[in-house]
Amino acid sequence: MSEYIDHDPSGATVGIIEKQYFTFAQPPDLLPLESGSSIGPVTVCYETCGTLNQDKSNVILVLHALSGDAHVAGYYHAQDPKPGWWDIMVGPGKAMDTDRYYIICSNILGSCMGSTGPSSVDPDTDKAFATDFPMITIGDMVQCQKALMDHLGIEKILCAIGGSVGGMQVLEWCVRYPEMIASAIPIATTTRHSALAIAFNEVARQAIMADPNWNQGHYYGKEKPDMGLAIARMIGHITYLSDEAMRLKFGRKLQNRSALSFEFGAEFQVESYLQYQGNKFIERFDANSFLYITKAADYFDLARDYGKGSLVKAFTKANTKFLVVSFTSDWLYPTYQSKEMVKAMKKNDLDVSFCEIDAQWGHDAFLLPNPRFSSLVKGFLKGACHGQ
Amino acid sequence: MSEYIDHDPSGATVGIIEKQYFTFAQPPDLLPLESGSSIGPVTVCYETCGTLNQDKSNVILVLHALSGDAHVAGYYHAQDPKPGWWDIMVGPGKAMDTDRYYIICSNILGSCMGSTGPSSVDPDTDKAFATDFPMITIGDMVQCQKALMDHLGIEKILCAIGGSVGGMQVLEWCVRYPEMIASAIPIATTTRHSALAIAFNEVARQAIMADPNWNQGHYYGKEKPDMGLAIARMIGHITYLSDEAMRLKFGRKLQNRSALSFEFGAEFQVESYLQYQGNKFIERFDANSFLYITKAADYFDLARDYGKGSLVKAFTKANTKFLVVSFTSDWLYPTYQSKEMVKAMKKNDLDVSFCEIDAQWGHDAFLLPNPRFSSLVKGFLKGACHGQ
Repeated sequence: MSEYIDHDPSGATVGIIEKQYFTFAQPPDLLPLESGSSIGPVTVCYETCGTLNQDKSNVILVLHALSGDAHVAGYYHAQDPKPGWWDIMVGPGKAMDTDRYYIICSNILGSCMGSTGPSSVDPDTDKAFATDFPMITIGDMVQCQKALMDHLGIEKILCAIGGSVGGMQVLEWCVRYPEMIASAIPIATTTRHSALAIAFNEVARQAIMADPNWNQGHYYGKEKPDMGLAIARMIGHITYLSDEAMRLKFGRKLQNRSALSFEFGAEFQVESYLQYQGNKFIERFDANSFLYITKAADYFDLARDYGKGSLVKAFTKANTKFLVVSFTSDWLYPTYQSKEMVKAMKKNDLDVSFCEIDAQWGHDAFLLPNPRFSSLVKGFLKGACHGQ
Repeated sequence: MSEYIDHDPSGATVGIIEKQYFTFAQPPDLLPLESGSSIGPVTVCYETCGTLNQDKSNVILVLHALSGDAHVAGYYHAQDPKPGWWDIMVGPGKAMDTDRYYIICSNILGSCMGSTGPSSVDPDTDKAFATDFPMITIGDMVQCQKALMDHLGIEKILCAIGGSVGGMQVLEWCVRYPEMIASAIPIATTTRHSALAIAFNEVARQAIMADPNWNQGHYYGKEKPDMGLAIARMIGHITYLSDEAMRLKFGRKLQNRSALSFEFGAEFQVESYLQYQGNKFIERFDANSFLYITKAADYFDLARDYGKGSLVKAFTKANTKFLVVSFTSDWLYPTYQSKEMVKAMKKNDLDVSFCEIDAQWGHDAFLLPNPRFSSLVKGFLKGACHGQ
């Protein structure tokens, strides 16, 4: 996802939020992973907003995308200039109304934003795992979230919601722990990563691994593979926008000049934008985490893992009310992929609403203010409450 | 463009073809470039097939794309395993019938396939130009082709044809030397590079320039920036295909294995394909040429250069019969961009035919066998002959 939205014009906020940590899978009770490996202890960084009601029936589990974190809404301190990444959607009176719902968002396994990942210290060696970190899957991420729910004593989730890689986790939850998920909103996502999406991820990974500073992943405490990670991020950003979005946002406008300079470097605004995004990303994200999480996304294939190749069979055990959302200009996870999952859900007689939202900002649209999208989520959540 | 087609099943061939060279702009009569620089001497590598008729009225000028060369058809020797890159279109009885037409194809300025480019020796220093090579434009490439036409005594071109960056040269010819071009076929191209196309090119360039072997372009005689160039090519290949093409060609099929190996590297076929294409490319292409030619494509903007911002005005002097061709699944130069040029041509009362060909192979479609496309070109050329 590209730019997180700064301040909500409504001014409504969940206020100051604190990071929390939960550690489980202490040896010898390691967490078994889908790859056949296991890992432990595992720390999950999470945040909550709103108040858990007495019967614990108002939980919304927000699942973040590739480079996201647990900080879904609010501020860390009074002078914090920037709220959480989905602050436009989470807060008093907002789509995910914190006066009604208890929001939980945890950082995914493999990330570098507080949960255990390749940059974490391996207790066996007292060094960062680096590429000795085991390969992970979307299912493994969901297992960690389930452990967190157990820890918090939550047996039922009113709604699991997330976009992109977050949406994959939503779908995984619904088929892995069907009894726990009352309703779900997979947004701008897919039941299996397409060849095109794998292709973009693979080139991005190659860019990181080609950086001599990557050093087979063992760069902690040394120079980081910043150039490679910046290029990987630039590739990502192209896929988050759309031809139309780029035309409207940049066109052929030049950056800080009135005529072509006939030099290599950022002459066009779109070049400057991508370089800025690449350079901003290396300050906050770990290259190995990027490798592991994109691999997890590429492995994601609900039909293979749960339906022996049949997407209809994959949803057999699901017992969830769905709102599936896609955006017209999203070419990374195009609408036809959402329609495929809707079809498979309907064949299982599940209660499914589907909405393709007209938006020109490409895959990123789910992170941008959109009154139709907000009211859709708000209305669906109200219905989910009544349905309980 | 991705894979050149091997052998034409019809077996028809122009036979053995020889590379030819023409050198001009000997100092002090340097070739003035659009950037304000100048260069000379300039060598143009070219090939011809068919026979020039007596009144020199049967010339088809084929203009190649980014990584192409002058070798449009035929073989270099009897054991040559691979014909020229458009052998399916050029030969006896083919769309560009060498029994009727005289085909000329020259390697573009800035390339590494025989014409002067950054890997050529700078006569001032006796070393390769590298990044001391001046920045070039599509207009500069066309100037070199014009010099070649003058050298060959050709005053009128029956048809200028080319796809992608070759199509840009076609359009440039029609507005720069309108009196010379009787008819033209711009294919899968655009009158100005979009922000999306610039974005992909810029990330590809960044990948090359991030390779430490690039060494500010001065790598000749040393280790080459192969990793960077391979990544650049992989990015290109994604844009030459389409979501549908990748789904049909690769889907989620694994490469040489029956189960996921949970390792970094090419597990999926699409990953293996991209790595193969990247590695094949570094054997034949120069990284600096890639930088210069993609920049030339990014600079291309017919409206800015010839119409003071108006595409309609850009075509005012054009005096050419056009066949504009686009392909449904080409998302690098989508059909709407072809329609824009058709509209501007029609407002100038030019004789324009437009055809969007239904093809699932993305931008690459123009290089693949397509009976509809072939017969369209064949028919248009016959009409162009009669129109003379």
